[in-house]
Amino acid sequence: MDINVLKSLLVRNTTKIVYLIMDGLGGLPDKETGLTELETANTPNLDSLAEMSICGMMDPIAPGITPGSGPAHLSLFGYDPLEFAIGRGILSALGIDFPIKKGDVAARINFATIDKEGKIIDRRAGRISTETNRRLCEKLRKNVKLNENVKWFIETVSEHRAVLVFRGQNLSGKIEDTDPQVVGKKPLKAIPLEKEAEYTANIINDFISKAKAVLKDEDKANMILVRGFATFEKIESMKERYGLNCLAIAEYPMYRGLARLVGMDILKIPGSFEELLQIFSEHYNEYDFFFLHVKKTDSYGEDGNFKAKVEVIEKVDKVIVPEIMKKSPDVFVVTGDHSTPYLLKSHSWHPVPLILYSKVCRKDSVKKFGESECTKGGLGRMLLKDFMPVVLANALRIQKYGA
Amino acid sequence: MDINVLKSLLVRNTTKIVYLIMDGLGGLPDKETGLTELETANTPNLDSLAEMSICGMMDPIAPGITPGSGPAHLSLFGYDPLEFAIGRGILSALGIDFPIKKGDVAARINFATIDKEGKIIDRRAGRISTETNRRLCEKLRKNVKLNENVKWFIETVSEHRAVLVFRGQNLSGKIEDTDPQVVGKKPLKAIPLEKEAEYTANIINDFISKAKAVLKDEDKANMILVRGFATFEKIESMKERYGLNCLAIAEYPMYRGLARLVGMDILKIPGSFEELLQIFSEHYNEYDFFFLHVKKTDSYGEDGNFKAKVEVIEKVDKVIVPEIMKKSPDVFVVTGDHSTPYLLKSHSWHPVPLILYSKVCRKDSVKKFGESECTKGGLGRMLLKDFMPVVLANALRIQKYGA
Repeated sequence: MDINVLKSLLVRNTTKIVYLIMDGLGGLPDKETGLTELETANTPNLDSLAEMSICGMMDPIAPGITPGSGPAHLSLFGYDPLEFAIGRGILSALGIDFPIKKGDVAARINFATIDKEGKIIDRRAGRISTETNRRLCEKLRKNVKLNENVKWFIETVSEHRAVLVFRGQNLSGKIEDTDPQVVGKKPLKAIPLEKEAEYTANIINDFISKAKAVLKDEDKANMILVRGFATFEKIESMKERYGLNCLAIAEYPMYRGLARLVGMDILKIPGSFEELLQIFSEHYNEYDFFFLHVKKTDSYGEDGNFKAKVEVIEKVDKVIVPEIMKKSPDVFVVTGDHSTPYLLKSHSWHPVPLILYSKVCRKDSVKKFGESECTKGGLGRMLLKDFMPVVLANALRIQKYGA
Repeated sequence: MDINVLKSLLVRNTTKIVYLIMDGLGGLPDKETGLTELETANTPNLDSLAEMSICGMMDPIAPGITPGSGPAHLSLFGYDPLEFAIGRGILSALGIDFPIKKGDVAARINFATIDKEGKIIDRRAGRISTETNRRLCEKLRKNVKLNENVKWFIETVSEHRAVLVFRGQNLSGKIEDTDPQVVGKKPLKAIPLEKEAEYTANIINDFISKAKAVLKDEDKANMILVRGFATFEKIESMKERYGLNCLAIAEYPMYRGLARLVGMDILKIPGSFEELLQIFSEHYNEYDFFFLHVKKTDSYGEDGNFKAKVEVIEKVDKVIVPEIMKKSPDVFVVTGDHSTPYLLKSHSWHPVPLILYSKVCRKDSVKKFGESECTKGGLGRMLLKDFMPVVLANALRIQKYGA
């Protein structure tokens, strides 16, 4: 749906929309039982919700395409993930809650080891500790003085990983990686991919050579490799697109970063499901849209841990779902951002099951929340990015198109 | 499907296609029985047709988008409703059978009441009678003489509503409404939204000031408010797009207007289902495509009258369906233009169930015509605008693409 047409149809309402996202929810069947993680889980609350709802299967990006977390969440929020590309450097900055601003250029850093000839021996500097990483970042902050008058930030991620951000006028993220991706070669120069990026490339090369000098006496981490340069382009907020005041409640920084990217508020960081519900409950009257994010379904999928993934789903069913239902939201959506089947130990392309509850949905015959059942759901199979208008319709927030 | 590719594949045939459209057919379940209007209706003929057919669920515009009648019908006829936008003024003109021509600018009029200072007291002039409206239109026709040499027409719709049409060279519909939509303010000037519309805006302001003078002694209707200006752009006909000679049989003027817009013939106006069938039967040999329109399903949906909507569907099943089947059309499509659930008392975004009968369709497992059953149908969920090629294929009117 053309976003400008959609915007022209928006009407004000006070209806509440809740998105409960279990990261990597979709799975694959256990070989013995034939049931997926979700189908194996005992989920009486989700099942009875599904029975009152309309269900379906969502393709986060397009059939066959496995999404990263960034594009998958943009799609969840109704943004075309192929139109709104988020560079890797930006995603890394979002992932550590870095307060990134429009025009910033961000990149990923690896601390690395080079030999006397300058050739790379270890691209990860022997996986130095996060503590060492913090010390190195602080050392660089104190000792690197750039020629140009631009602000720069270096922030520890974990182990050998850090994020580098440049802030100033006329910066460009169109720069090639300096990481050659193999050992035995020297790090590359930062090469501009367009004329407008020459200025930025010079700054980066200045930074790298000075960082190298500062790090030269380090035992392992005597060099940095930089990759995934990207500019941060501000994205139209969900308030601007849909007229929704949004609150994100997410334990993991990456998802808070993605939520912030589309203009959601973040008030507190929950350390448990109970804290998540407390934040939700305390601020329920202040917002139109709530994005509740559960990470562990994905983590256990990545670990290949079927049982643990099942248990997280069961806990969500038992602890979170009833508390949300007590608030009687006008629209309640339960889904994942993508599939992370235990069998693949990674994100996958498989569509994600979804429940859409509202008082005015046309409920279908689905009586249990699971991949096989949702395949028969009334929503059919949809591109996730096309789903937001359905949510807005069910929240009675769009008027008819044409007379 | 790209229309030019589709056109290049058309082949001649003498096959007959019948579209039986129950306006606003889709519904929502009754709270006690869990069955929609259509599912509640006793429809043995439609059920046995569904059993021989392939079924599906159609989104008239896009998932979540509630259509007006204009876009919904364009989509039914295979036109992208987001590409072919029909302005409100044009739709009103079509709705009273006004013989609108290419380049005409049409708008909606409200007769209104203003006080001595010129401020609006009543935007609907106390809902004057249609008879009074006719008298006022006649009075304006006799007494308003414009400065410019353009033709103009004013036609009663009902109560305080009328349609105003200007015909001439270089007219533009890009004009702002003069109706401020609130009482206590003066009517606005007609302001051009583009340079090319200045000429038209002057004509309209000339018309309004003269109309005001003519109406000044009227008790209630002493002013006109004009809105929904739109230019009539001729749309490629169904003959040009699909090679089909089309006949529309519709009781309500709006639908005849929409049919005329895409080049369908209109021979007679049916006053009953029996008359509709008589026109259909008499002219069956003369046309390739028949658009039979039943309005009352929508009207009763808008009234929130579940029972009456059920009864209309039952009558269509009993009276119309068998007579169409007697003609053994090659393709017989039964659907709605959109949903009008009794529960919402308005058009809605819910997809519409559809039956496609042909001797060469791949029939599915659907045995009863209804929303839940059609959700499991072989057509799946489709955009309505994409459906016409399926119809043409079933009518053996398109050849293969590529060698």
